[in-house]
Amino acid sequence: MLTITLLGTAATMPLPERALTAAVAECGGHSLLLDCGEGTQTAARRAGVNLMRADAICLTHYHGDHIFGLPGLLQTLGAQGRTRPLVLLGPEGLLEVWRAVYALTGPLPYAVKPLVCRAGQPVALDALSDGWPAGAMLLPVATKHRVRSLGYRLDLPRAGRFDPEKARALGVPVTQWRLLQRGQAVPLAERMVQPAEVLGAPRKGLRFVFSGDSAPCPALEQAAQGADLLLCDATYALPEQQEQAAQWGHSTFGQSAALAAKAGVKRLWLVHYSPMITDPEQQLAQAQSIFPAAECGFDGKRITLHYEENEE
Amino acid sequence: MLTITLLGTAATMPLPERALTAAVAECGGHSLLLDCGEGTQTAARRAGVNLMRADAICLTHYHGDHIFGLPGLLQTLGAQGRTRPLVLLGPEGLLEVWRAVYALTGPLPYAVKPLVCRAGQPVALDALSDGWPAGAMLLPVATKHRVRSLGYRLDLPRAGRFDPEKARALGVPVTQWRLLQRGQAVPLAERMVQPAEVLGAPRKGLRFVFSGDSAPCPALEQAAQGADLLLCDATYALPEQQEQAAQWGHSTFGQSAALAAKAGVKRLWLVHYSPMITDPEQQLAQAQSIFPAAECGFDGKRITLHYEENEE
Repeated sequence: MLTITLLGTAATMPLPERALTAAVAECGGHSLLLDCGEGTQTAARRAGVNLMRADAICLTHYHGDHIFGLPGLLQTLGAQGRTRPLVLLGPEGLLEVWRAVYALTGPLPYAVKPLVCRAGQPVALDALSDGWPAGAMLLPVATKHRVRSLGYRLDLPRAGRFDPEKARALGVPVTQWRLLQRGQAVPLAERMVQPAEVLGAPRKGLRFVFSGDSAPCPALEQAAQGADLLLCDATYALPEQQEQAAQWGHSTFGQSAALAAKAGVKRLWLVHYSPMITDPEQQLAQAQSIFPAAECGFDGKRITLHYEENEE
Repeated sequence: MLTITLLGTAATMPLPERALTAAVAECGGHSLLLDCGEGTQTAARRAGVNLMRADAICLTHYHGDHIFGLPGLLQTLGAQGRTRPLVLLGPEGLLEVWRAVYALTGPLPYAVKPLVCRAGQPVALDALSDGWPAGAMLLPVATKHRVRSLGYRLDLPRAGRFDPEKARALGVPVTQWRLLQRGQAVPLAERMVQPAEVLGAPRKGLRFVFSGDSAPCPALEQAAQGADLLLCDATYALPEQQEQAAQWGHSTFGQSAALAAKAGVKRLWLVHYSPMITDPEQQLAQAQSIFPAAECGFDGKRITLHYEENEE
């Protein structure tokens, strides 16, 4: 299962009741933080999310409202006793941003490992920590903002059903079953037992997409195909603001809804509201007329996505 | 008159209900911001303080909990249309900090003017804007932290009572009276009329002191003599934490109270609480046993200090 928590839903500047847009994806006691505007650490505390569990921070781009929370969060993690490394992901320009952040924080008691991402080149999450199921992947997606930007897709694959009878018949000790379930081969006396020998056909996994700042674009629509949850840029509420949205590389409520419909996602949460939008719920009906499962994001909103069948 | 608003009272890391320690001093529609930890811009909105009015940001030192709000605040002021310059004050090291902040913000639509301060060398506030009365001074004070640090004292002098009869007798046009009241000489046909010719003896002004992070020290005690309000480091609540406080360059509630008593201040507000202090009010009695006028600071606490007599 995968738990998504919205830490904030604001664009441009933080408001007292609306932190800057950031989200956390948690699985198996580990997590990814998506974007980190000023106040993200406080928003996480408010939402009851412990960012010490984060394996990585994934930045969509380097506008201030997405990164100015980094110095404070990194320092607080150190003050809280973090020693294990933290991966910092983002599009090109990451090293320059990290250099500037480091000039403010100075040395930290853990390593920060910047990793420049390119659209379409997935990052293996199971290599970051064992909180992620075998084959869990983070896919950077090319988005359409006014600066170089990425969205992120998180895919948690789900192995086929494990057949204990087959494992027993092959002579695999029970203590090794978990490895096979996680997709790893297991050595027996004379050969390696492959997971496929004891697992059924792969089952449907979970897919989560975070658009970052973007106008509607084919790559994002493609990446979001069949997603269980899409968090999508909804900077502008009104259809007549499409031109403005295009100019600034953002989307309207209606455009996000249309993209969600075309991508056939299960759930759409609108996020990244302009400070001009005082009550997003007032504008929701228009989005729902295009995509009925559209919902307004709000700070602290949370969902746990489960695999489709009730089986583990 | 001088209005002081506490934007936050936290040390080390921001908490959901306690922003990092920062304060605003407002006079005549202009203001100074004292320190700027992460979340200061949001705390200001919450407190109803418009930081567009700030002439300067005064930094006490460069630990993250005092400066990481700078990139976001500077960018937001630009987004809100600021074009007039902003002065950035702080001890040595300011240029390096400004360089790192600028690396994150990029160009802003107004000039930021860093001004390195030295203890004992006052900054003339009336040169920053006409919100400040003639002779208003900001005095950097040497404090005792584990890095180079300053406190700040704000002095608003008050001219003697203006005598309209004298001004009339000298032939000063009514339109020029305000200049004399502000301490400026006024040219008549043959000579300059000096303010002293139409003003009584200077009256008691207002004095406000912000300690920043500091252990008790003679320079701070000296600077705070007779202050109308002292905001003082009270990182630790308990008397038995004095050693820890000394080690980290901070003060306990009791030490701040003792300093306030020795300096003969009118009011003491305790600020900069360690995250370990969940309810500062529970520890206040001990401080009040030393200095009865001690109060706990809290986010949004505000006072308007008036000149002693009810005269303008």
